[in-house]
Amino acid sequence: MLKGFKERPIGIFDSGVGGLTVMKEIICQLPKENILYLGDTARVPYGTRSPETVLRYSHENARFLIARGIKILVVACNTSSSVALSSLREKYPLPIIGVVEPGARAAVQMSRQKKIAVIGTETTIKSGSYEKAIKYFEVSAEVSGVSCPLFVPLIEEGWHEGDVVTLTAKKYLSSVTDNGADTLVLGCTHYPMIKNIIEDIVGINLIDSAVETAKEVKQILTEQDMLCEDRVEAFREFFVTDFPEKFIKIGERFLEHRIENISNIQLGN
Amino acid sequence: MLKGFKERPIGIFDSGVGGLTVMKEIICQLPKENILYLGDTARVPYGTRSPETVLRYSHENARFLIARGIKILVVACNTSSSVALSSLREKYPLPIIGVVEPGARAAVQMSRQKKIAVIGTETTIKSGSYEKAIKYFEVSAEVSGVSCPLFVPLIEEGWHEGDVVTLTAKKYLSSVTDNGADTLVLGCTHYPMIKNIIEDIVGINLIDSAVETAKEVKQILTEQDMLCEDRVEAFREFFVTDFPEKFIKIGERFLEHRIENISNIQLGN
Repeated sequence: MLKGFKERPIGIFDSGVGGLTVMKEIICQLPKENILYLGDTARVPYGTRSPETVLRYSHENARFLIARGIKILVVACNTSSSVALSSLREKYPLPIIGVVEPGARAAVQMSRQKKIAVIGTETTIKSGSYEKAIKYFEVSAEVSGVSCPLFVPLIEEGWHEGDVVTLTAKKYLSSVTDNGADTLVLGCTHYPMIKNIIEDIVGINLIDSAVETAKEVKQILTEQDMLCEDRVEAFREFFVTDFPEKFIKIGERFLEHRIENISNIQLGN
Repeated sequence: MLKGFKERPIGIFDSGVGGLTVMKEIICQLPKENILYLGDTARVPYGTRSPETVLRYSHENARFLIARGIKILVVACNTSSSVALSSLREKYPLPIIGVVEPGARAAVQMSRQKKIAVIGTETTIKSGSYEKAIKYFEVSAEVSGVSCPLFVPLIEEGWHEGDVVTLTAKKYLSSVTDNGADTLVLGCTHYPMIKNIIEDIVGINLIDSAVETAKEVKQILTEQDMLCEDRVEAFREFFVTDFPEKFIKIGERFLEHRIENISNIQLGN
């Protein structure tokens, strides 16, 4: 272990603000850790890009954070987690955590019937990435997916409570337990913002990938003796690839903290 | 006039499916015209890009269509119309029509009080492009803008009727007539899809930019003796820069026609 390694920051990237729900949970579980967050807001959303493009963006994001001396990398983006995780792990010699595996593992542990439903963006559901991950942990699991394309724009508009989002959630979720699922995975980093509404409607166990990812980060840092224990005040820094105003406005609701120390950076082209 | 010039197609481009509402009106008013439609779906939305980038994309789109022998170019995209119209007109020797000017002109003609409200995406409203165009036609006009960010995702999700979109519209439009506006411009090519809902809520004159743009296309082709008059069956062809499936699914609702003859093309990078 290098001297000062424990003091190094945790690095998190996402295509936009969604990963801030993961950062919020990491702050909650690891309040003493310094954190660098990169939101590739100029190239959001990743979900509609080709796998090659997402791979390239993910490597650019990873390199940017690794060059700043992070001790662990959190890929807080469903698309990058599905497409780029193994390639990133191959290339960079530090622990790299995605958001899909922790949610999938927790769902398998939680579900009694091994019947699991997943909600996410259209791209995530179509990709089948949660289904693959769940079946990796429990080959006999039955997995159903429902895409909820309006949740992200509703949440980003700040309508994460009230009649419009509730009515929308009821429409999307009416069939989610049809196949007898006893556990529902929130397969999008935005969805924790409307967790209570979803929970009220479906009435089954919810797996919040943001919480599970934060748990995994804590576990790995603990196991590898990389936890920062004696810091008085943690430092958090943000990088975005487009104008920061919208990121700050939406992001502070996600993070439940002020967003200061934010810089506009250039990546790739 | 070159021989066969009248037989040439009309060219339309947009960043995505929105411009199909303009195409629908052009088909309605000019059913004999051949039409080429280019949707730059790989690079949608333009609204969040820098003006330099939108300018570059717009020129690439224009060149693609002009190379296919169009007689008139319709820039059926609010962002391109605001940013790139004069540059396109400078460069290419054919009539070029945007969607902002026709709507602005019609609003000034329609409004008795010269108090005009505009609804659009956040980018369109922030850009002030309708306000500038309206004041160009009537310097004393009072213009207010309301952005309605959820309309586009709701319409693309196919929820252009029912309780969710009605409730959303009521929220956005409750203040639209506060300043005494007697005319409302639909400043987004998606919005004609929910025109009836908007009309019921606001109860003032509505200007549909798609209809006004189609009128202007017809007027210019008539004035310049470029109308195609003796064709039996018109041919329509579509080009998209990303997978066509989603474009077809959403687009057929916008166009109210089948989308056939569609090709996936590459532009720019």
